[in-house]
Amino acid sequence: MAEQDKLRDAELVVFQFPLWWYGPPAILKGRFDRVLVSGYAFGLVDPATGRVRKFGDGGLAGRRALAVVTAGDRPGALGERGISGHIEDVLWPMLRGTFHYTGMAPLRPHLLTSVHHWQPGRFEEEVDCLVSRVHGAADEEPIRFRTLAGGDYGDDYALRPDVAPGVSGNAAHRLDGDLPHDLRHADHEEHEASTERARNRDVTEIMRPRFEH
Amino acid sequence: MAEQDKLRDAELVVFQFPLWWYGPPAILKGRFDRVLVSGYAFGLVDPATGRVRKFGDGGLAGRRALAVVTAGDRPGALGERGISGHIEDVLWPMLRGTFHYTGMAPLRPHLLTSVHHWQPGRFEEEVDCLVSRVHGAADEEPIRFRTLAGGDYGDDYALRPDVAPGVSGNAAHRLDGDLPHDLRHADHEEHEASTERARNRDVTEIMRPRFEH
Repeated sequence: MAEQDKLRDAELVVFQFPLWWYGPPAILKGRFDRVLVSGYAFGLVDPATGRVRKFGDGGLAGRRALAVVTAGDRPGALGERGISGHIEDVLWPMLRGTFHYTGMAPLRPHLLTSVHHWQPGRFEEEVDCLVSRVHGAADEEPIRFRTLAGGDYGDDYALRPDVAPGVSGNAAHRLDGDLPHDLRHADHEEHEASTERARNRDVTEIMRPRFEH
Repeated sequence: MAEQDKLRDAELVVFQFPLWWYGPPAILKGRFDRVLVSGYAFGLVDPATGRVRKFGDGGLAGRRALAVVTAGDRPGALGERGISGHIEDVLWPMLRGTFHYTGMAPLRPHLLTSVHHWQPGRFEEEVDCLVSRVHGAADEEPIRFRTLAGGDYGDDYALRPDVAPGVSGNAAHRLDGDLPHDLRHADHEEHEASTERARNRDVTEIMRPRFEH
């Protein structure tokens, strides 16, 4: 299929969509349902181990995937403690369940908020930011989800008891643990002191310093 | 619209679907996109407060919603520390972002796993369980998400600093905090001692004692 060949040839796959009911519109979801079929994107067995290749490996291994998301929500609603859930938790089915599941390296989502209230000039600024981001995507650090092959999961596909003991929720499956700190609310000095946190921060924010306040 | 009238008349709405790419198939997602439009399901203002009615209130307030989900995954993969994420985190866009957002009370999902490997007789057993569950749905305790009107969120739609301080991720938005304990892996005595935990447990499991081992 042509769509499958396009993905096969890609180094970076960008999915741009508006957030509808906290996920992609049905037409994009249907694209996943139809294009990412068994034997192509998943359901492949590693002949060396006899194990199914998924979660960090799969038919699309070697590619990077970027979700570019426009939302009517204000920034705080999709931030670290936002009422809608953090954007990386909202997009868990895509980032973990689709990108990472098929072997693609999930980049941090490129989130654009309050899109119904942008001032004149904002659109052009955001286009520049997005173009820069895509150009630099090959050098980004993807989200570091735990992989199936990494040995952190037992035969029941649950985390082994000695891995991140006592931790539950999506954070347990990130090697970085907690969600990236929301720079908008960060204390600057504290932020500067924390290289770990800085490494995990939302790249969208890094590239839009004029909106950090 | 006929679909909107059906929802308006319902006390309990059941959405049954297979888990595809960690969410509903596109045809169901498209039903949400088309039926749950602004001015009907959301975007309604409370004349008393002038605030938008959402997250615990909205156009579908007073109804209960139940997701019945069939999955190829084994039970552990969608459990408390499962590789796919807990089913309530996987379904966050539906439970929190659709049901609760429009005012419907989200019941705990009715999850059926390993469906490609059911033994003879299992299907009939599960039908009985599901029928019982639906009949008792009016008496269930729904998922206790924090509401917008409850005052836990600031004007930026993030949790106020004094609410669940230091907690992030989806758990911060549940009044019950952590995800329901996975009974399959629970120590029986510990379980018996914990009424709080028991109250939060997966109702599917409660109704299928024969599969708890």
